[in-house]
Amino acid sequence: MKAAIITIGDEILIGQIVDTNSAWIAQKLTLAGFEVEEMQSIGDDAQQIKVTIDEVFSRVDVILMTGGLGPTKDDITKKTLCDYFATTLVFDDTVLENIQNVISSFTTLNELTRNQAYVPKDCTVIQNRVGTAPVTWFDYIGKVLVSMPGVPHEMRYVMDNEIIPRLQAKYDPDAYLKRVFIVKGYTESALAMYIADFEDNLPEGFGLAYLPSPGLMKLRLFVRGEHRLPELDEQVRKLQNILGDAILAEKDITAEKLLGERLFERGLSLGTAESCTGGNIAHTITSIPGSSRYFKGSVISYANEEKVNILRVSQDSLDRFGAVSEAVAVEMARGAQDVLHVDCSIATTGIAGPDGGTEEKPVGTVWICTTCKDRCVAKKYQLGRFREANIVRATNIGMLQLLEMLE
Amino acid sequence: MKAAIITIGDEILIGQIVDTNSAWIAQKLTLAGFEVEEMQSIGDDAQQIKVTIDEVFSRVDVILMTGGLGPTKDDITKKTLCDYFATTLVFDDTVLENIQNVISSFTTLNELTRNQAYVPKDCTVIQNRVGTAPVTWFDYIGKVLVSMPGVPHEMRYVMDNEIIPRLQAKYDPDAYLKRVFIVKGYTESALAMYIADFEDNLPEGFGLAYLPSPGLMKLRLFVRGEHRLPELDEQVRKLQNILGDAILAEKDITAEKLLGERLFERGLSLGTAESCTGGNIAHTITSIPGSSRYFKGSVISYANEEKVNILRVSQDSLDRFGAVSEAVAVEMARGAQDVLHVDCSIATTGIAGPDGGTEEKPVGTVWICTTCKDRCVAKKYQLGRFREANIVRATNIGMLQLLEMLE
Repeated sequence: MKAAIITIGDEILIGQIVDTNSAWIAQKLTLAGFEVEEMQSIGDDAQQIKVTIDEVFSRVDVILMTGGLGPTKDDITKKTLCDYFATTLVFDDTVLENIQNVISSFTTLNELTRNQAYVPKDCTVIQNRVGTAPVTWFDYIGKVLVSMPGVPHEMRYVMDNEIIPRLQAKYDPDAYLKRVFIVKGYTESALAMYIADFEDNLPEGFGLAYLPSPGLMKLRLFVRGEHRLPELDEQVRKLQNILGDAILAEKDITAEKLLGERLFERGLSLGTAESCTGGNIAHTITSIPGSSRYFKGSVISYANEEKVNILRVSQDSLDRFGAVSEAVAVEMARGAQDVLHVDCSIATTGIAGPDGGTEEKPVGTVWICTTCKDRCVAKKYQLGRFREANIVRATNIGMLQLLEMLE
Repeated sequence: MKAAIITIGDEILIGQIVDTNSAWIAQKLTLAGFEVEEMQSIGDDAQQIKVTIDEVFSRVDVILMTGGLGPTKDDITKKTLCDYFATTLVFDDTVLENIQNVISSFTTLNELTRNQAYVPKDCTVIQNRVGTAPVTWFDYIGKVLVSMPGVPHEMRYVMDNEIIPRLQAKYDPDAYLKRVFIVKGYTESALAMYIADFEDNLPEGFGLAYLPSPGLMKLRLFVRGEHRLPELDEQVRKLQNILGDAILAEKDITAEKLLGERLFERGLSLGTAESCTGGNIAHTITSIPGSSRYFKGSVISYANEEKVNILRVSQDSLDRFGAVSEAVAVEMARGAQDVLHVDCSIATTGIAGPDGGTEEKPVGTVWICTTCKDRCVAKKYQLGRFREANIVRATNIGMLQLLEMLE
């Protein structure tokens, strides 16, 4: 069952924002059994929207569209879809009621927002429980077009709770069976070479996807069709035999979620002491709802004074070894345990870049120390040249290093 | 002069990676005077590539294409372009020489990499100084198609140094003039209503774009053609008169960058004390290279013990008013100034959700206190129901609240 994603908005075409919705939608559609054939981003232009729908409908069954549903004049998607499907806008009281529920908590209704309750007459209106722009679903010559708001959290809520279940009910596509493995200790190419035989001998229709993210490697083994489950299980066993301990977990889960689960199961508390990651480990861990059950806090010691004053790192270690050193990483991690009164800690100190590198300690040099009660592991990593990527990699590596200690 | 961007790669269509190249290219093209009409992402499929080029060339003059140029067998862009432009692959010694220069620093030449030196006969070959896949430029019925590698830093280098200058030399497009304003205190719809007259009376060819992000609103006023600069200046003056103090800054800049500039100009240091934002303010601020010049550190006091132990918040305030209260926000912010020895601080305490809300303090209740030396401002905000959005909004609001104090 073929699908396409169309994103509408001038702000995308001038590069003002990066379209992250399409990738998110593509992932959900793929897992739900649909094949995404193409993604397009086009402007807030009625003619262009209509031509694009025509072209794309000639190739796919399902079009998921985001954007152009805001209350201001440049947002023309709703009106254009009315034209395209030869219908008119009508005022819908149930939509108004939903809008009032949504906004009551933080603002009052004005005229522009009230206009969001006008919807195309001939379509299925799906209430947007988390925003003011209603979702519209058009059935058309056996195909479907859904128009959703482009605000990411609104789109995600609607996709998960309304669109994906309805699409699956309507089309019942072949199930997309998959198993995801979090693998440690391999780069993408090293892993590809190590499991080349396994990959070459996969049965017809099976696929293996490498999902590298900074500092973390996932493998997804997949096939379409419920009846192939026994074969999938057999291939999983093969892969388990080949990779053994390198498999850190067999589920599609982020490092922060996995770490949170392990800590909570064992009744352990966590704190961080961050220099080069600048709070990103704390931020990543606290992005998980309920993280307060195990996460207690952090000291972001960006400046050396804070390392000494709050974490009680010794001035002597700083002078002798420098801030980016094993000794300082260990003292930071131990300091975090003491100061935050936690069982486990993750400490980072390094040079994120682009400046601050030296011959001896180039940009990307990072020391990470993890502790769990008495135990303590400190390791040096040589990451890349890019600040943003270095911060994310050090964050993932730090969490994985602690996860390994908890095995 | 119209342009389009085509991204090739199956990994994009399954949502494995987010396409950030297209937005980057779109920004460069727009500023260089081109109008980006559309962006498409399609699979590594020869037929689909050819059909897409046909369709897109019927609408635009310039196609910039990325991806599908790797050395492995799923990368078919180069061969497909040979088919499309009815030419053949030939071995190019200058490309081989460039490849050898590029890889000499980190690896040796293997057969797959050597094959990268085969290039289409009838095209302009542009050396890729930072990678092994050459860039190819096809002139065709007065139009241009450029094929570039999808590796972001390679594509960026080639765009800046080769493609943009050549495109401008060939087409000499009208300049894109713009002014960006950071506006405080308005939702998108409220702002649109407030400046409706201004917007309705903009001269022909002018555009106004609303760029909302959580807790932060930007406006972009734009027009094409160098000769329209005096008119643009006039419209800017009008908008300044209408919005007055609501304009926080007149440049296209993030809140974290603006805050960093203001702090650095005034020689002020910053620290944060974060509860509900869980380190995201520190992370956001330290994502800016050079932030160590003004950012000293943070205490992430997720648990109440840390508020008391490290930030010296009084147990009495916690007991009497609760953690989410003005008193605790103020004590956290003052505590951060003391403990971190900084001039300015941002403190957050609130209920990010989805759990933890009460009748009196529902999910989304956040107290934010900002200090600068003796001055101190504490405000209560009622944000939404979504954890992720609440964290981002509280982060932006906290930075803006401090920015206002620095005016």
